[in-house]
Parts: sequence; structure tokens; C-alpha cells
Amino acid sequence: MEPLERIFKAKSVAIIGASKDETKRGFQAIKTLVEGKYEGEIFPVNPHEETILGLKCYKNILDIKEPVDVALVVTPAHTVPAIIEECGRAGAAGAVVIAGGFGETGEEGKKIAAGMVKTARKYGMRIIGPNTSGMISLLNNMNLVGLKDVPRGNIALLTQSGNIALHIITEASLKSREGFSYSVGVGNEADLQFHEYLKYFRKDPHTKAILMYVEGLRNGRKFLQHAYNTTTKKPVILLKSGRSSTGKKSAGSHTGALAGISEVAKTAFERAGIITIERSCELFPAAECLSILPPIKNNKIAILADGGGHATIAADLLSDFGVELPELQESTREQLRKILPANASLRNPVDVAGGTDSNPAIFASCAKILLRDENIGGLLIVGLFGGYGIRFSEQLKFIEEDAAHQMGKLVKKIKKPLVLHSLYNFAKPHSLELLRYYKIPVYEALDIACKCIKVLAQYGNYLGTCHNKTNFVFKWGAKAKPQGREIIDNALREGREALLEYEVKDLLRLHETPVSKDRLAKNEDEAVRFAAEFDTDVVLKIVSPDILHKSDAGGVKLGLKNEEEVRAAFREILKNAKKYNSSVRISGCLVSPMAEKGVEIIIGTKVDGQFGPVIMYGIGGILVEVVKDVAFRVLPVSRHAAEDMIKEIKSAQILDGVRGEPPVNKENIVDLILKVSDLIESYPEIYELDLNPVIARENSLTIVDARMIIRKNHKKNGSSNFQGSTPHVWGSV
Amino acid sequence: MEPLERIFKAKSVAIIGASKDETKRGFQAIKTLVEGKYEGEIFPVNPHEETILGLKCYKNILDIKEPVDVALVVTPAHTVPAIIEECGRAGAAGAVVIAGGFGETGEEGKKIAAGMVKTARKYGMRIIGPNTSGMISLLNNMNLVGLKDVPRGNIALLTQSGNIALHIITEASLKSREGFSYSVGVGNEADLQFHEYLKYFRKDPHTKAILMYVEGLRNGRKFLQHAYNTTTKKPVILLKSGRSSTGKKSAGSHTGALAGISEVAKTAFERAGIITIERSCELFPAAECLSILPPIKNNKIAILADGGGHATIAADLLSDFGVELPELQESTREQLRKILPANASLRNPVDVAGGTDSNPAIFASCAKILLRDENIGGLLIVGLFGGYGIRFSEQLKFIEEDAAHQMGKLVKKIKKPLVLHSLYNFAKPHSLELLRYYKIPVYEALDIACKCIKVLAQYGNYLGTCHNKTNFVFKWGAKAKPQGREIIDNALREGREALLEYEVKDLLRLHETPVSKDRLAKNEDEAVRFAAEFDTDVVLKIVSPDILHKSDAGGVKLGLKNEEEVRAAFREILKNAKKYNSSVRISGCLVSPMAEKGVEIIIGTKVDGQFGPVIMYGIGGILVEVVKDVAFRVLPVSRHAAEDMIKEIKSAQILDGVRGEPPVNKENIVDLILKVSDLIESYPEIYELDLNPVIARENSLTIVDARMIIRKNHKKNGSSNFQGSTPHVWGSV
Repeated sequence: MEPLERIFKAKSVAIIGASKDETKRGFQAIKTLVEGKYEGEIFPVNPHEETILGLKCYKNILDIKEPVDVALVVTPAHTVPAIIEECGRAGAAGAVVIAGGFGETGEEGKKIAAGMVKTARKYGMRIIGPNTSGMISLLNNMNLVGLKDVPRGNIALLTQSGNIALHIITEASLKSREGFSYSVGVGNEADLQFHEYLKYFRKDPHTKAILMYVEGLRNGRKFLQHAYNTTTKKPVILLKSGRSSTGKKSAGSHTGALAGISEVAKTAFERAGIITIERSCELFPAAECLSILPPIKNNKIAILADGGGHATIAADLLSDFGVELPELQESTREQLRKILPANASLRNPVDVAGGTDSNPAIFASCAKILLRDENIGGLLIVGLFGGYGIRFSEQLKFIEEDAAHQMGKLVKKIKKPLVLHSLYNFAKPHSLELLRYYKIPVYEALDIACKCIKVLAQYGNYLGTCHNKTNFVFKWGAKAKPQGREIIDNALREGREALLEYEVKDLLRLHETPVSKDRLAKNEDEAVRFAAEFDTDVVLKIVSPDILHKSDAGGVKLGLKNEEEVRAAFREILKNAKKYNSSVRISGCLVSPMAEKGVEIIIGTKVDGQFGPVIMYGIGGILVEVVKDVAFRVLPVSRHAAEDMIKEIKSAQILDGVRGEPPVNKENIVDLILKVSDLIESYPEIYELDLNPVIARENSLTIVDARMIIRKNHKKNGSSNFQGSTPHVWGSV
Repeated sequence: MEPLERIFKAKSVAIIGASKDETKRGFQAIKTLVEGKYEGEIFPVNPHEETILGLKCYKNILDIKEPVDVALVVTPAHTVPAIIEECGRAGAAGAVVIAGGFGETGEEGKKIAAGMVKTARKYGMRIIGPNTSGMISLLNNMNLVGLKDVPRGNIALLTQSGNIALHIITEASLKSREGFSYSVGVGNEADLQFHEYLKYFRKDPHTKAILMYVEGLRNGRKFLQHAYNTTTKKPVILLKSGRSSTGKKSAGSHTGALAGISEVAKTAFERAGIITIERSCELFPAAECLSILPPIKNNKIAILADGGGHATIAADLLSDFGVELPELQESTREQLRKILPANASLRNPVDVAGGTDSNPAIFASCAKILLRDENIGGLLIVGLFGGYGIRFSEQLKFIEEDAAHQMGKLVKKIKKPLVLHSLYNFAKPHSLELLRYYKIPVYEALDIACKCIKVLAQYGNYLGTCHNKTNFVFKWGAKAKPQGREIIDNALREGREALLEYEVKDLLRLHETPVSKDRLAKNEDEAVRFAAEFDTDVVLKIVSPDILHKSDAGGVKLGLKNEEEVRAAFREILKNAKKYNSSVRISGCLVSPMAEKGVEIIIGTKVDGQFGPVIMYGIGGILVEVVKDVAFRVLPVSRHAAEDMIKEIKSAQILDGVRGEPPVNKENIVDLILKVSDLIESYPEIYELDLNPVIARENSLTIVDARMIIRKNHKKNGSSNFQGSTPHVWGSV
């Protein structure tokens, strides 16, 4: 049994720091376990007590004769390292460390945490926390949090805030019949990290959905990889917070200046199949629906309403969400016509127009007809159901209850999801409780009910297309070429971080990307000779390890027509360069033909602190720099993802030809993005790559200018330095 | 007393179509009035009955001897015109017409409706509906809707869907202590329209806030005018639905192609001080807060939390909403320090870090300290308050109740708003009911609580700046010039809808806008002579009443350097024009100097079906056509609004100079927008104006090309053709 399994299925828990003081966590922890009917053994540990709550108290964990699976450590931070050593020697599979005062408080705390983890590793033990509210395994009622009344169910809860765990658990117990398999407060993640829990929950048969509240990720890439592997098996629902502190990135390259985490993270999470939620009130409902209902397979649903306003609002919202409301089949309309009044609307949304006022069981009949329409993948009922017995006549309560039974049995059989909105949820009518018994969720907010339909459709869509996705795994160096390696190794040997333009271009040519022809002229005569080889006007550009931004140094001359102009340009470039930096080293000038007209695009990559290499694409100039109209993806990308990038920017239509220009070959751009993805995978040292501009045309594409920064030991997999319980690291990415 | 006042304060109601059949509206209406303790007289009218529910029944409304203020008409559509005639003769102030089957069902119904309104006008009577769920005046318990248990209060409810009125009223009665002064279903608005009710509620002392659900407006401009006059007195909260059917506009001018209603309506509503709400679950809470709490005056609030997760999520949301969370004053922090534990966070959000666990009354003490910080305009408390007695220890219930009393009295005294989020709202603890008693609203969704803070700040901000706004009133023709009138009248006389380019430019020059110099050359020799007058290269453009899009007809030649080129161009343009249209009428060619380089901008106006004249501004070319990066305003605009338009587009930064270009004088653009606004006001016939391009430079601005469409009798005030109860006309604007 791996340690995590032993932890979650623990047959015994030792409470290190057990106490008789009722206000102390060391007392409450034992009380919760006893009252919550923990199915294993409880071993209080306190050198000064004989018994606590009638249980024998041990001086030291090592005094316990029976095996100890989990140690709950409630003592202060400074005592923890020695305790972890003892827990390890006692053969514990894991320790839950509650105390704060580790990484989040500075260097000293970080050192203690690192030592603690090192000790744990020595014994093959894993640590949850520190600085966590604890963990609960509902399998055996091992409640190490001290929360009462946690409902058992199939949702695994994984949070970075004890407060939010409490929120979700309370919401579930007050408003739902669903519950949890586990609740884990990840705390500082000194040892166990988000992705490791994810991996465990993926295989866990008691977990049908994973609900996460995340403020920052320690290792974004590993998280994506594990999420990708999980979401094909079960849904992962995630709310990220900490947007507001979005730190401004020190500009640097274009990619850097533009990479807002929310963009990068959002598309990355989406590609990994994660359902991201923006509003906290939608978080539990989304997880509830995904854990009990089948996903919507065809993105098509019907709305059944008992009033025009609700129907209109729901249709608006679902349309915003991209869920389709198809026309109903004629046979479906025919059946509805038989049971609804003449003025009912039989389009989708269906409005019963008073047809249920005296008999709300008509809802069940309509639901049956609608869900049997093979074009309809799911059903949303909005309005007053549950309130007919309250608002109109008490008798109707029983009819509503009958309707609930009918709908419940229908949904069990037909295997399509049904979600209900009821204005009367707050009044807690029995009919709605019946629906929940049948795993039909009910919400009093129309917006939440619509969001639930949306996530069911989103997950259904993902499952239908996830074979097209990438799994976020690099095969570092697999496609490297010896000559390419040599270019990079040579620069590293010379202590350079920036490659020279011709080096970048040589590297790009090696990887079969279309780079503008150019030749390095060491002197004026060579420049003239090379210029003559091209049958167009030429460009001269300075080549110097000391000049990264050539234009700023007066190092670029365009549209040179003849020998005279080339000579003058060469001389002036050298003069400018020396003026720019008196000790400048100059390798010469790059001579290249003027690029043919076309659409300027930009492709860049950089290493994101959280997710590792990411790629950016945009249409050049003002659209990138001012309007920030760009698309990001975490690398590597599939052909499908590259195509999406091209489609998703607002200015995409430019490629189709505007103002009389011919259309641009998009396939060429997709190919270039894929080759750039391969290039980054080939040489782990690449820190930033900037292809700007690339000229795209009807039949060709040319990389006109290219910059590359390399670093030997950057964290290519993405790994942030986040510490503490509310680190807001999203902003720093 | 004006008719609307007599209607809302009616001392007597006649039920036309009264019935003894309990399933009929004519029975239920009387029952509701009797059981709801209507304070006036009830007169059932039915020729076949003697008494109904013990009340004397009349054969005809004219048989009633006492005065009748309101007639509730529940008979079918075809009977209504004759009934209205009788009601008029009986001296009724108004009629509430329930029946559908009027305008929403086609031409026949529209005719009936028009006749009915004409009859009513004859007697000075007003009609609510038809096709309405009815109306309720809580002043005298005149409930003509048939809804039980409508709570009395200060919110006037104005809806275009009976279903939504029911929704809001039910939500209020289940979850709030607030209620309504009136509820009106506007129905088809055959007579009384949204803006007329608005006008009445503005003056009504019983109404503190107006809550509206709108699917379409019959007269958007009048609505804006009345809203503008209302919102300086009391808040108007509005949810618009029907977005999803956003019909595609037939392109035409740029403005037309781009004007999505949501953009136009959103900024117009905002300028009129309306609080627009997008999510139905936020609609009643927003109205509730605005009706019972003072607005936040300085856009600055504090958050008080008992957990990090809630604090972070709330801070994110409020930051998205643009509400500031300022640092607390040192004296405030000092006071908090004394009552909170050492690990509490005293930044804003304040996190009590367990400091309330054993004594939730600490919340009241913190609230007092925070609201006394003069920098803090309002307070949001998030988390578990109300649940301490449920979650932790029953004893704490009483402490929470004490805290509620303290906070209630505090808020009464300090006149700053306090909004609470409580995880435990659904459990209905008494402490939360106490808060509501003191007019402190409590919500269980964090998002809703944050939205409420936002609207309180938004309304406070509006009240602070509304003197800068325009009131949406045109003084038609006030600034017209005789020569300008003549240009337009001349074209109208000739039956032309499009002015010729030089006519538009003459008009623009008359109104002192900077138009490129040009001269109309009737023949080749004149073109040569005029070209010689300019000391730059010139442009030739065809002038023909038959050619609106000159480039498409090969009618434009740029950069002509000398006589030879001018002659060749003139001949070619004429040839192209004849090829384009063999019977083309040609007035000649416009000769103008090539415009100096600068930033191309576009300014356009058109007449919106709902709001009348609107203006559009964008930075030229691809940014407008492809990225659709434009700003809209309903005309007329103030200087402030014009400045906002320039700032709000995504590409605004281009005006500051990018890629080494000099900055552009923005004042010139603002002046041009204001002059265009005046121009539209001067000549009501202007239907579309397109200034494209306008070249803006460091020190100057030139209108290079201009198009104008005029129409004699367009609906210049905006007036849609909307009919029916769910018309979705937003989309058609």
C-alpha cells in the first residue's frame, strides 16, 4: 500500500500534543474522532497525562505498541522536526501537521520545513500541511479537522483555505443530499502537493468528482499533467482566487509583457479538461451536478418553463455559455401539444403557459417527452416547481411529490441529466427533497442552474474531444540536432545568454522553419558581394553580442538599392554601434533581401514560473502591442491547439484578407507554431524565443527577425516559489 | 389628481367580467381584493349575476352610482374596446386590461389596441396593459394580480413578465424583510409606457427604489430622459433580457454594422444613472440594498472576514468591480490590534484569524472601529456570522444576537452601509433576522453580497458626478444654419437620400469642423487648374449622385504628382464610372490635396431604432472593421462623455504615439465629436453620417472623406415597433 492510501484508510491515529484542555485542538481532535465514530484506534500522545477522554495516553509515539498509520501533530512549529523523526521511526505512513510558522513566515521557517520533509522522506513517510486545517477521510470517519456533521458522499474536496472547506461542507449539508469522500487542506504543501492528491483521487473508487479551491500552484506543469490524466476519468472542478493582486510583470520580451496568468492558466486548465469556476456560489453546485449526473453529450438541451421571463433569462444565459437550444422534433411538439394548452410555446424554451397551474404533474409528462427527443441531451426546468403547493393550493403539494417521483424514475432510466431551478427552494418543500433523493439537483438561483447545465455540457464536450489534447509532457531533447546543440553549447561556453541573430536563424533553419535568407558580412566588401547575390533591395543589420535591440542602436538599414547605399549603410551601422557602446564587439552585418509584403505575425515563447514553457501568437504591430490581442498556450501544443490559437484572437479575420489583400495560408502558421513547439522541446536551455516579425503570405511565410535567450538551469517545468497559506502567486506568474 | 395617481390610490375598483366560477380570474380577482383587505370599494360587473362573494353585482359599469377609479377588465380581447368606451363614460381614471390577443398576435390585434387607446384618450383615461398580469398598489392593498402575501415596502416593481414579478415578490417574502410599494406588469404598453410609470414613481413618497425587468423599450430616448431625471432622486435597478436573439443588422454604414444593442444600451443606461444587473439572482438584493442603505460616497470599503478564503474571494470580486479596499489608518489598526489575536490580519481585508471563535460579538466591535475610519465608506462582513451558535456552541447564539443589536444600532447612527454575507443564511438563525430588522441585508452568496457593495458604490459615484451628464434631450434645429438647411432641403427636393461628398463637406465646414480643402472640378482642365493651386500631390474623387461607394466604382485616384497624371486620372475615373453604371450622372471630380500623415480615426452616427441618434468612435481601418474596437454613445454627448469615448477603446494608447510616432491632440477629437453632436441636433433629417477617415495629428485634424444619408420622416427620437410580451427587440436595435 502506498503511503497516501495508508493515510486515507488509516486504521490508527496518534494525536501528538493531545490535551485535556477543552479549548485546545489536542482535545477537540480526540473528541471529534470519538464522537464522529472513527473506525480505527485513537492514541493520544502527551508525556504529562495518563488518559484523555477515557483513552490511554502515551508519553511518546514510540511507546505505542500497535502500528500507527497517521500522526496528527498539533504542537508548535519548532517541535515538529523532532516529532517527525519519531513518527518516522514509529513507522507512520503520514503526518498531518497543523501548526503555522513554517514557510509562510520567512527563511527560518522554510528551513525547518525543508528539514522536516527530508526526515519524512528518510522513512518513506508523507506530510499533509503544515499550516493546514487538517484532513478528513469519510471512508472510516477519520475526521482530523474538528468540523461536525460532514456529509458522506463522492466528492473529494481539496482546498488551500480551511475557511472554504468549511464553506463547501456547510453548503452541502444545508442545501444538498450529496457529500464528500475526503476533505484535504493542502496547507503549505511542504511535502504533498496538489497533483499528488489528484493522482490518488483519480484511482479512488469512492470519489466521483474532485472539487478544488486553489490560490497558487507549486508545480503548475505537473498539476496539468495529472489533471489531464484525471479528467478523462472523473471531473475536476476548480476555483482559483487571488486574481486581484495580479502583479505587473517586468516587461522584457513581448510574451513577458503580455502574459497575464489568468489567460495562460485559463486555457491550460481548459485543455487539461478542468472545469474552472469563477463564482464561489457555483462551485459546489457544479461539483454536485458533475458527481451525480451524466454529462451532456451533444451540447444540446431543452428548457421547460412555466413563465416567459424565466425562459428568456435562461435562454440568454445558456446562449452566452455556448449551449445550444435546438428546435424540437415535430413528433416531440406533437406530443406536447396534446397535453399543453393552445397558447403554450412549443419552441425551445417550452413555456407551459399556465398548463401546469392546476396540475404540476404535467411537468413530469413534459420532461418525459422532451428527454426522449433524441436531439435533446439534457433538460433544465425553470420556475415555480415545488411552490405550486405553497403559492396556489395546498393540494398541489401531493401532485408535485408524485411528479418528483416520476421525474426521478425517468432520469434513472433515460441517463440524460435533468437540473431544476425552483423559486421555492428556500421554503424547503418536500417535493424538492424528493428530487434530490433521485439525484436531481435543485437550485434557487436561475444563474446557478444554468451554470450547472453549462458545466455538464462542457464536460461532455471535453470527453468527446480529449483524444485531441496534449498531455503537457515534454520529451526533452528528443528532437534535438547535433548542430543545434553545438550552437547553444557554444554560446553557453562563451557565457552568453542571448544568441546572435544568425545563430538563432541557423537553429531555426536546422529545424526546417522558413527563415529569411541572409549572410553574415564581416566587412563592407563582403556586404556588397552578398547584396549582389540577392535580386531585390537588401537590409543590413548589426551582429553583436552586445546589442540585443538592434534598432535602438541604429543597427538596421532597410531598402538598400545599390552598392553605394550598401557601403554607406554598413559604415553608418558600425559608427552608430560604436556610439551606442564604445567597447562594443562587432561580428559584422547580416545582409538579407527585403521581405515580400504580407501580414506581420509574432510568435514568442517564454518560461512561465508556474507552468514552464508557454507560447504566444498574435498579429503584428499595434494589435499585439496596444490591443494585446494575443493567444497563449502552455507548450507543447497539438495541431488542434495551434489551429485554435489562430482562430481565437479578435483580429483572426485579417488572415482571410481584408481591404482587398489576398488571404494568408494559415496552414503555414500552424506548421510554424508546431515547429517552434518542437524546438523548445529539443533544447531545454531556451528561455525566451521571439520571432518578430514573421511575414505570412498567400503561399509562403518568412521569419524575418528572431531573438533567443538561453539559460542553463532555469526551472523548465515551471515551479513557483510560493509559500504560505494565501500566497496570491497567480499574480507573479 | 392626474390619472396615474388616481389609479394607484384608487378608492374603488370595478371588476369587468366578474364571475362566480372559482377557476376564473373574474372570481379570483374579487377574492384577492377581499382577502387582501383592499381599502376601497369593490364593484363586480356581470350582467348575469346578482351578487358575487356577497358583493352586489352590477349589469354594467354605468349602473354604478358611486365614482369608479379603476376598472379591472378580465374579458376577452374582442370585447375590450366597447368596455373601454363604457369605462370612459363612467369616469374611470384607468383600466387594467388583462387579456392577450392584441398587438402581439398581428395586425388585427394591433388595430383593436389602437382603437382602444384612442377611446381612452377621449375620456382622459389611461390603460395598463393589455396582456399584463395586472398591478398591485400596496398603499391601499389594491391587489389586481392575484398573488398572495405580497410584502409591503418601498420598492416599486415594474416588469414586462408576470413570471418575474412573481419571482421577485416570492424572493422578497422568503428571504427579506423588505417589500413593495407597487408592482406593475406593463404588458404590451399599448398606452402607458415604462417612462410614464418611472415619472410617477419618481415623485411618489412611498417609493425609495425602482426595480425593473425589461425585455424591450418602446421609446428608448424618453425612457433615458425620465430615467436620468429619476436617478438623481432615487435609484433605478434594471435587468434587461433578450440578449440571445441579437439579430444581425444589415450592415450599411460602419456604425450600423457594429452597433450591438448591449453596447449602446449599456452605456446609455449607465449615463442615465441606471444600475443595470446582469444576473437575475442579484436583481432583488441590489434593489433591497439601494432602498434601505445609504450609498457609498467614496468608492472605498473595508472587508471584515473570519477566514482567508472568503476574504480573498471577496477582495478579488470587488477589485473586478472597481471598488477600492484602502489601507486602514494606523489609529484604526491600533484599535483592532487591541481586540484581535496577534495573528489577525489588520490589512484590508481584516481577517480576525479565530478572534471571534469564542466571542462573535467581536464582529460588532470591529465593525464599529472600521466604520469610524473616515476613509472607509462602507463595510462588508463575510463568513460565518449567524452560524457560530450552530457550528460551534449553542451559547454563542445569544452573543451573536447581541452583536446583531449592536451592529444594527451602529449602522443607524453612522449612516454608512453594512452588508453581510453569511454561510448560514439558509439555516435561518435569529441573529440574521435581527440584522434585517435593523435594515442590514444578509446574503448567503458571497458574489451577491459583493455585488450589493458594488451597486452601493456605483450609485454613490453616480450621485457625485451626475451634474456632468447629459439629459438625452435634443433641441432640434436650435443650432442649424440657413445655408446648411438649404443644402439638406435641396437634396430632399431632388429626392436624394445621399448627399454628395462636397455637400457634406460644405455642411461640415459651415459647422466649423476641419474638412480637407477641395474643389469640384467639372472637367479635366478645371481639375488641372485646381490641382496646381495645392502645393502637394493631389487626389481625384468622382462626384455623382449615383455612386455612394467611390472606391468600388474605380472613382478614386491618389497621389497625383503633375498635370499629366491628373489628366490621366480624370479620364480614367470617368471611364470607370461609366463602366460601373452606364447611365451614371457625373457632377465632376473633387480635387483635394493628399492628407498629411497621422492617425486615422472614424466617427459615425446613425439613428438607432430604440434610442434615436447614436455616435460611434474608433481608430481607423482594421481596428474598427476587424477588431470592432469602438465606443458608442447615445447623442447628444457632453465633453465628459466625448473624453470617455476616447479613453475607453482598447486601442486608445495609439493616440499617445506608438512606434516612435508623435502623440495626437486628443482635444481636437473631442471637439469634433461635440461638433458632430451639435450637427445632428441641428438637422433632424440626418439619418447617418460617416466621417471616414479623419486624420488626427499632433497639432491638427482633417476630415478626409464624409458620407451622409438623410431621411425626411425617420423616427428621430427612437421608437421601436415592438409588440407582444416577449418581443426580444433589444436584438433589433
